[in-house]
Amino acid sequence: MGKNRLEAFSDGVIAIIITIMVLEMKTPNGSEFGALQPVVPVFLSYLLSFVYVGIYWNNHHHMFHAARRVSGGILWANLHLLFWLSLFPFATRWMGENHQAPTPTAAYGLVLLMAAIAYWILQNTIIRHQGRDSLLASAIGRDWKGKLSPALYFAAIPLSFLSPWIANGLYVLVALLWLIPDRRIERVLANRRE
Amino acid sequence: MGKNRLEAFSDGVIAIIITIMVLEMKTPNGSEFGALQPVVPVFLSYLLSFVYVGIYWNNHHHMFHAARRVSGGILWANLHLLFWLSLFPFATRWMGENHQAPTPTAAYGLVLLMAAIAYWILQNTIIRHQGRDSLLASAIGRDWKGKLSPALYFAAIPLSFLSPWIANGLYVLVALLWLIPDRRIERVLANRRE
Amino acid sequence: MGKNRLEAFSDGVIAIIITIMVLEMKTPNGSEFGALQPVVPVFLSYLLSFVYVGIYWNNHHHMFHAARRVSGGILWANLHLLFWLSLFPFATRWMGENHQAPTPTAAYGLVLLMAAIAYWILQNTIIRHQGRDSLLASAIGRDWKGKLSPALYFAAIPLSFLSPWIANGLYVLVALLWLIPDRRIERVLANRRE
Amino acid sequence: MGKNRLEAFSDGVIAIIITIMVLEMKTPNGSEFGALQPVVPVFLSYLLSFVYVGIYWNNHHHMFHAARRVSGGILWANLHLLFWLSLFPFATRWMGENHQAPTPTAAYGLVLLMAAIAYWILQNTIIRHQGRDSLLASAIGRDWKGKLSPALYFAAIPLSFLSPWIANGLYVLVALLWLIPDRRIERVLANRRE
Repeated sequence: MGKNRLEAFSDGVIAIIITIMVLEMKTPNGSEFGALQPVVPVFLSYLLSFVYVGIYWNNHHHMFHAARRVSGGILWANLHLLFWLSLFPFATRWMGENHQAPTPTAAYGLVLLMAAIAYWILQNTIIRHQGRDSLLASAIGRDWKGKLSPALYFAAIPLSFLSPWIANGLYVLVALLWLIPDRRIERVLANRRE
Repeated sequence: MGKNRLEAFSDGVIAIIITIMVLEMKTPNGSEFGALQPVVPVFLSYLLSFVYVGIYWNNHHHMFHAARRVSGGILWANLHLLFWLSLFPFATRWMGENHQAPTPTAAYGLVLLMAAIAYWILQNTIIRHQGRDSLLASAIGRDWKGKLSPALYFAAIPLSFLSPWIANGLYVLVALLWLIPDRRIERVLANRRE
Repeated sequence: MGKNRLEAFSDGVIAIIITIMVLEMKTPNGSEFGALQPVVPVFLSYLLSFVYVGIYWNNHHHMFHAARRVSGGILWANLHLLFWLSLFPFATRWMGENHQAPTPTAAYGLVLLMAAIAYWILQNTIIRHQGRDSLLASAIGRDWKGKLSPALYFAAIPLSFLSPWIANGLYVLVALLWLIPDRRIERVLANRRE
Repeated sequence: MGKNRLEAFSDGVIAIIITIMVLEMKTPNGSEFGALQPVVPVFLSYLLSFVYVGIYWNNHHHMFHAARRVSGGILWANLHLLFWLSLFPFATRWMGENHQAPTPTAAYGLVLLMAAIAYWILQNTIIRHQGRDSLLASAIGRDWKGKLSPALYFAAIPLSFLSPWIANGLYVLVALLWLIPDRRIERVLANRRE
């Protein structure tokens, strides 16, 4: 079975998630500069989530670039990932409207953790389907980022109750880790061509 | 006529339905853990509908994978299916906000029933267009799941007034039936290749 | 320039319009059967608009199926059509919430009229770009439906103030005219193949 | 890496932005003609933003038509552009609901400026990736529109506080500049073919 429709459907869902999230910022009450002030924490949460959803799209793009065909299991593992991504706007809104409150910050971390686990399941489902010596398996290699990220989210959840600032710092740190370009798949593809 | 645009349009509509549904969960009033409590029944309804829309997308994907070309009749049968799917968020919201109330539970079953009938019409329109001995016809075979599901929805509608729990149990049961991987089309495709 | 991205973008916009429209039905206040009553006129407006947007998608699909390449002028004529289609949810909501009120019914007719004119401009822009003896020009032929529809919308606008029922009857009539399968383009395509 | 998925994802995001914006017009309170009056300034803001997002989609289409492959840097430069475009509905709503108020008009100009800068960064990232003598570089040429537009947005921001009318006039002027068909890329493509 081809992968085109799975990619197109995922692109559609991720495009909606990333756009709706930013649309949810409420219009300020009033037309002066000060009316923007309550929007600032909401804006910062949206910025963080935009970057996270962007990272997921980017990685999804690379992962399926290295995949060839999809099975029923891959379809469902992909829907499972989309389910957790679809909870980003909910978690973002709750955290943004209660800036630096412990429970919403922990809930945001839980959604990040579940999405990371779903991504890991999807990746493994594809590798199992394509074989251990497949392009994707060799491109991913030891996958230290994919292993470190859920560990940091897991640590951030209880730390939210100590200080939401620490948890938010960890969320930003993981996002920055992924923003640093990851040339693994591009490099392996280039090698195979030679 | 090619099937690409029909697939792309359906993917777009289904992607919007599945995403908006989850976005409609309202932000809890308050930042403590207890504020999440009223969200739980809404969340469960959304989870059920997410799985159902996921099943429809999955089956739609398989069905058109086995189809070759589309006619005007297929375009309209597909729009008819999308219409009933587009009522999922409405029915989900009504059921989620009035947890275990008989009428909304019955209305949810009605939407499930109409979508199942629309799917069956679409399937038959494609088979009629492609011939009884087509790939799709042989892949679907006796189609017991496609026949059992509407019967169970039909039963659930009056049972909602006896006990919404029974109706909801039937909805979960049918979803589980479809989640068990259905390898019919994949198997037939593999056979034809040999 | 290829037509794929124009088709994909239009599919995206039309998919959002058709889905959001149905999503806008408000959840009934209460869980009894009677609570659905105020939703009925809104539901009927949505059903009519769903059929109209479906017709536009269908015709758009056929029209670009017969087109080969796109120019800058075609891109803008297409965006112009999408602009008027994007006003459908607004006009539908206003008409649905004020059932059988003259002004909203006339406004709905105006949006239908402008969309029909935009479609006609788009069609002519494509034909001018491809030549009078192109596939599209011969497929469309005398285009009596495309000429009758805007005339009926134009008549319906003042008739709304006499009786909204007449105007709504005309809207349903035009929709039915288009629902009757139009095999022109399919026939011409089949002829050319022979 | 192919450019198809980047185009499809961008199309999805831009389609949602352009559609949601128009959907946000609130239903008039009442069914008479006069009830439409408060919608007029909001409608005009939406019309301006629809044209701007249409121009961005059009230019994005042309730019990637002249591009061949994408790198990780191009993916992120594209997401950066989509981020600023996603703020259009927010800025449009704020300006529309406070017609001719200085701060919202300046904020709208700021979002236009940031989107123009993001577009410029994306264009340069593609040119750097493809070489100075690439199709895109020669098609763009001296790019006076791409240089004049941000200068005019930059001027409009302080001018909003002098008179919002002047700022809005500049926004309309820049939109008109881009609406005049820009045949550079089409011409260069035609030249290369010969």
